[in-house]
Amino acid sequence: MSYLSQITSPTLLIDEKICRANIKRMSDKAARHDMKLVPHWKTAQSHIIGDWAKEYGIKEVTASSIKMAEYLCGQGWDNIHIAFPFNTLEIPKLNELAKTQSLSVQVINPVTAQKLVDGLTEKVGFFIEIDAGYGRTGVHVSDFGLIEEILLTAKKSDKLYFKGFYLHAGHSYYMPDIPALYEQTRDALGMLKAKYQSEYPELVTRTGDTPGCAVMEDFGDIDEMGPGNFVFFDLMQANLGGCEKSEIAVALAVPVVDINRDRGEILVHGGGVHLAKDVLVDENGNKNFGEIVYLNEYGWTIPDHEDRSYLKSISQEHGIVKASKSLLNSVQIGDLLGVLPVHSCMTADCMGAYLSLDGKWIDHAEGCH
Amino acid sequence: MSYLSQITSPTLLIDEKICRANIKRMSDKAARHDMKLVPHWKTAQSHIIGDWAKEYGIKEVTASSIKMAEYLCGQGWDNIHIAFPFNTLEIPKLNELAKTQSLSVQVINPVTAQKLVDGLTEKVGFFIEIDAGYGRTGVHVSDFGLIEEILLTAKKSDKLYFKGFYLHAGHSYYMPDIPALYEQTRDALGMLKAKYQSEYPELVTRTGDTPGCAVMEDFGDIDEMGPGNFVFFDLMQANLGGCEKSEIAVALAVPVVDINRDRGEILVHGGGVHLAKDVLVDENGNKNFGEIVYLNEYGWTIPDHEDRSYLKSISQEHGIVKASKSLLNSVQIGDLLGVLPVHSCMTADCMGAYLSLDGKWIDHAEGCH
Repeated sequence: MSYLSQITSPTLLIDEKICRANIKRMSDKAARHDMKLVPHWKTAQSHIIGDWAKEYGIKEVTASSIKMAEYLCGQGWDNIHIAFPFNTLEIPKLNELAKTQSLSVQVINPVTAQKLVDGLTEKVGFFIEIDAGYGRTGVHVSDFGLIEEILLTAKKSDKLYFKGFYLHAGHSYYMPDIPALYEQTRDALGMLKAKYQSEYPELVTRTGDTPGCAVMEDFGDIDEMGPGNFVFFDLMQANLGGCEKSEIAVALAVPVVDINRDRGEILVHGGGVHLAKDVLVDENGNKNFGEIVYLNEYGWTIPDHEDRSYLKSISQEHGIVKASKSLLNSVQIGDLLGVLPVHSCMTADCMGAYLSLDGKWIDHAEGCH
Repeated sequence: MSYLSQITSPTLLIDEKICRANIKRMSDKAARHDMKLVPHWKTAQSHIIGDWAKEYGIKEVTASSIKMAEYLCGQGWDNIHIAFPFNTLEIPKLNELAKTQSLSVQVINPVTAQKLVDGLTEKVGFFIEIDAGYGRTGVHVSDFGLIEEILLTAKKSDKLYFKGFYLHAGHSYYMPDIPALYEQTRDALGMLKAKYQSEYPELVTRTGDTPGCAVMEDFGDIDEMGPGNFVFFDLMQANLGGCEKSEIAVALAVPVVDINRDRGEILVHGGGVHLAKDVLVDENGNKNFGEIVYLNEYGWTIPDHEDRSYLKSISQEHGIVKASKSLLNSVQIGDLLGVLPVHSCMTADCMGAYLSLDGKWIDHAEGCH
């Protein structure tokens, strides 16, 4: 019996083969560059997908909140890093989890370092997050005063130990010239390593973003890579050149509830609560909230570009597909269509579970933010 | 002990007094216009808030999916209407629920009507959704051929019975002239009622959108109103003139994790997975993903406009607050701030639970989409 017969409402499908190939490719790339791959598990948020990753030599993962770290605890990870500027209100929970799980956190100011020094009862590592141009979070790469204040503060504790520098060049999502931006990343992390390695011989440097990790081949002496989205990829990554559409490992199955042939539109049950509201806007201002793929009992096929159909608008539960002629000719009310998501991390977070193509449910942490 | 001491991570707060006042005001308004208020419960998605609503004479609610209807079943509602073009894959589930709960669905094409005729084993009502200009879903108001085909199809069944016409003038969210738009709604529903009342003497007409229900005083002979968002309101409604900011009943409590005084920015743990990514854009192109309120043990206070701080950008977990001088002067790492959401329905759907100001957890359906 096909997985399709299990679906009556919007359901997030995962193609295990594509997902494993994505993990393997990035794992091979890390090995080729003599780097450790520590994937950001905010995308998958799953034990079962974690077990797949372990088959490709992945031993550590990253979470984006302590709730997500809690979900991932006890699954045999050598370390779970919480890659979000640490929230000091969560020190009691951190102590609780650190009793049985090796953990590390991210620190970007001395106030947080001091609160950790005062509050930690268990050993916890920390990275200093560096901002080399993204401008969202982190200590500016040239602010040695701040870096040293954090390091000096941490030294007062035998629980809080320095692991290294973490850099998320998130502007790779917005800037066309990823190689130029990676020069910035390499230079920043290389300079910091050179400067602090004598005092901290074990320190490592890690870079995070999927677009960079996917397209770059020169990582300088960066030790670790921490991309997240590559596990599934999505239309945003395809748009950035980080993947092919055929490498996107998840698709939202949506039921067709109405067809408007005059307008060339199909109404599906699939909206913002399922996909999230991330959108691609083309040069003519056309919005694309997801692209239609055709489901079959083995997975999905991607129409040629000239037969492309896409979600032109979504509201809370509604999705309106701008449909190609060939789709309009064949679609029936009650059919299921697939939607490749614009931002797979957000879609997976909305949906809270995956259905595999052999009809098995795959876990996703629920409400772990 | 204040509710504040319970919070260590992003938490959706609800002010019961504001929420009850919102429900009472709309309930009074419906009574004043001799209309039945059937709120769309996709906003609250809660049994406890449903119990509050019942105290103001509300006896029926609306859901946006069969999963949400299932969550609301067995809570003493006289009827639950599923206000989404019915998804025929869910006929077995509809039959199951209709055994013990009065339900109605929405039909916009004869194919769906026929599948219901063929598949229903329990009595289920239906509304025909009418499109009088919004252009998202529904039968065009002048397409009598389609309306009659649906009605004729339904007549073949003794299970499927016609309840009336439903109109969601969702363009009230985008168009400045709500009164003009409501003339359209009144005219459309008035005309349809006049045309079909002799054949269906029990038929009712219902209009849905919160902006219209909030600002209009002339509903003509429309029988029922079905707004949803008014239970909480949000910044989008305040922007449209449907409410004051002081009438917004929910705020996301977010921990402060970093302060960048040079940039005048505060980093909070609160992003797209908590708030959703709905955004207000002002005439200068500035984005606003939520406005900061100050939390105290009794709830929150809203700063004056000149002291206004707001989320200028969000990513999956990060929120960056453009902070007023007074906020910058007082804020500390580890503080909690409140955020009035841009779109409260989506925020509540992301968060999946509410914390009341007396420290009690209030249910919200999880994953009911």
